[in-house]
Amino acid sequence: MGRRDLEPEDIVRFEEDGPKVVLLDQRRLPDEEVELECRTVDELVVAIRELAIRGAPAIGVAAAYGLALAAARGEDVGAAAAALAGSRPTAVNLTWALAEMRDEPTPAHARRLHQEEVGRCRRMAAHAAELFGPRSRALTHCNAGGLATGGYGSAVGALLAAWERGLLAHVWVDETRPLLQGARLTAWELETAGIPHAVIVDSAAASLMAAGEVDCVVTGADRIAANGDTANKIGTYSLAVLASHHELPFYVVAPTSTIDLDTPTGADIPIEERSGAELTTRFAARNPAFDVTPAALITAIVTEHGVREPVAS
Amino acid sequence: MGRRDLEPEDIVRFEEDGPKVVLLDQRRLPDEEVELECRTVDELVVAIRELAIRGAPAIGVAAAYGLALAAARGEDVGAAAAALAGSRPTAVNLTWALAEMRDEPTPAHARRLHQEEVGRCRRMAAHAAELFGPRSRALTHCNAGGLATGGYGSAVGALLAAWERGLLAHVWVDETRPLLQGARLTAWELETAGIPHAVIVDSAAASLMAAGEVDCVVTGADRIAANGDTANKIGTYSLAVLASHHELPFYVVAPTSTIDLDTPTGADIPIEERSGAELTTRFAARNPAFDVTPAALITAIVTEHGVREPVAS
Repeated sequence: MGRRDLEPEDIVRFEEDGPKVVLLDQRRLPDEEVELECRTVDELVVAIRELAIRGAPAIGVAAAYGLALAAARGEDVGAAAAALAGSRPTAVNLTWALAEMRDEPTPAHARRLHQEEVGRCRRMAAHAAELFGPRSRALTHCNAGGLATGGYGSAVGALLAAWERGLLAHVWVDETRPLLQGARLTAWELETAGIPHAVIVDSAAASLMAAGEVDCVVTGADRIAANGDTANKIGTYSLAVLASHHELPFYVVAPTSTIDLDTPTGADIPIEERSGAELTTRFAARNPAFDVTPAALITAIVTEHGVREPVAS
Repeated sequence: MGRRDLEPEDIVRFEEDGPKVVLLDQRRLPDEEVELECRTVDELVVAIRELAIRGAPAIGVAAAYGLALAAARGEDVGAAAAALAGSRPTAVNLTWALAEMRDEPTPAHARRLHQEEVGRCRRMAAHAAELFGPRSRALTHCNAGGLATGGYGSAVGALLAAWERGLLAHVWVDETRPLLQGARLTAWELETAGIPHAVIVDSAAASLMAAGEVDCVVTGADRIAANGDTANKIGTYSLAVLASHHELPFYVVAPTSTIDLDTPTGADIPIEERSGAELTTRFAARNPAFDVTPAALITAIVTEHGVREPVAS
């Protein structure tokens, strides 16, 4: 399965015959391309919690299919929604997708939400590509690719669109500890798209910036507060501070489904603390999965509606 | 072998019976405490290149023993010095220790240099501890501990001295990708000293600073240029920028043997590029082992002679 063949239904889909939600198990990429079949909501909750599927828009889509699964099995849709909503705390798309689905929890409705999510990715990528100068060397963090959105991608979508327009020369891929979504997933997507790239340790971004080898930073978002403060994978805030110090633009590319107007500022976004065993099983560890970048450090937030400069908090 | 029992000769020593240089194989810590015996200079060069012993002062000490080994075997001391000098390009202590040894390449001389190195560590740690306020929460990167200096440590030595004076509450340990010297070696040294600590991914330092959970950053150095610009493990420069942004002090603790007056500025320090396979064997990667922190971002450099504010370049 190459990038050009990576269709939305390859990442997550509903099958009436079962019924079941089928997803590409992202924990096993890039070594193996294996599908995981979830025949119950509980199985899907475990798959989301254990990151078989991850990325804020993609887990929203998976949860939508999960609600269709509960309804198809004649189960309590409200209980299913509560279980799915509790699978990951930081992404708001999950709540959004579940609310959208509640009145009509059908496979057709979930597929329409999925299609719309991919359509938004293509539109936001087109907007974001206009921010790229010629021969840009972009740096990205974690995986905000098709795998994270259910197709095409947000930040990686922007890179694909810039590449198609001849504006992208190279991508620096933060490996993204502890789970290496950059080194495993983003590098896999860029390789199959034929885009020149190199994986780096997360802490090398600063010296590449100082050496003049980075032109812009592009990331996705897990939740954007009403004031523009943005929660994303741990390390994103670090990159925003470093980009500001080196006077480089820092772009967030994310669908409006990521924006949570009920969350006034970044301080109100719950940050998931994951097990320290993801880092070390030998010593004490602290493992926040996300951090919050203040709006003032973000040059532009790009959604499917266009490019916005966030209002500084 | 606990920290309180970790003597300089446990880290690296010369044995006339052989003759051989014996070192604690740091690649296998913390899981196994295994000694590696080098009976030829070539074996020692490989051990240094492959990081069985690492840390600028420690490889200087190991190289001193290596020259004694060549002399004891009746080999060409000049050729041995050239081979040892080429084993790692960034640390200047290597060159310094070899120059010191050339006229008298004996085991006794190498042991004296080793003892002096540890004595300098204890003096610089005492100076550095005076910079700590009460209940300090310090953050450190890589391993500038006894393992890196041949005993007691530079940055970790400062933490030990602050702990002994009741000034240290907690240490954040950057895991330090790609080779995890923090998660493997510094955490091991702190655990055996009984100092409260938690390992974090390198990219989490910024959000801990923003949350007010860090009071100071303390690192070692591989080479300090005449103007105070400091080369150290990749990610050190990133921390210095982040500390500056959050108005936190950034301290470098290193012996004067690390200072290279023949190198005018950081731009003149050669930066070792290591194999990308240390990050990923599946995709293209870039793997600089060090970065350079400009003097202007360093609050103080602490040597065995005391605390100096570097002259900004």
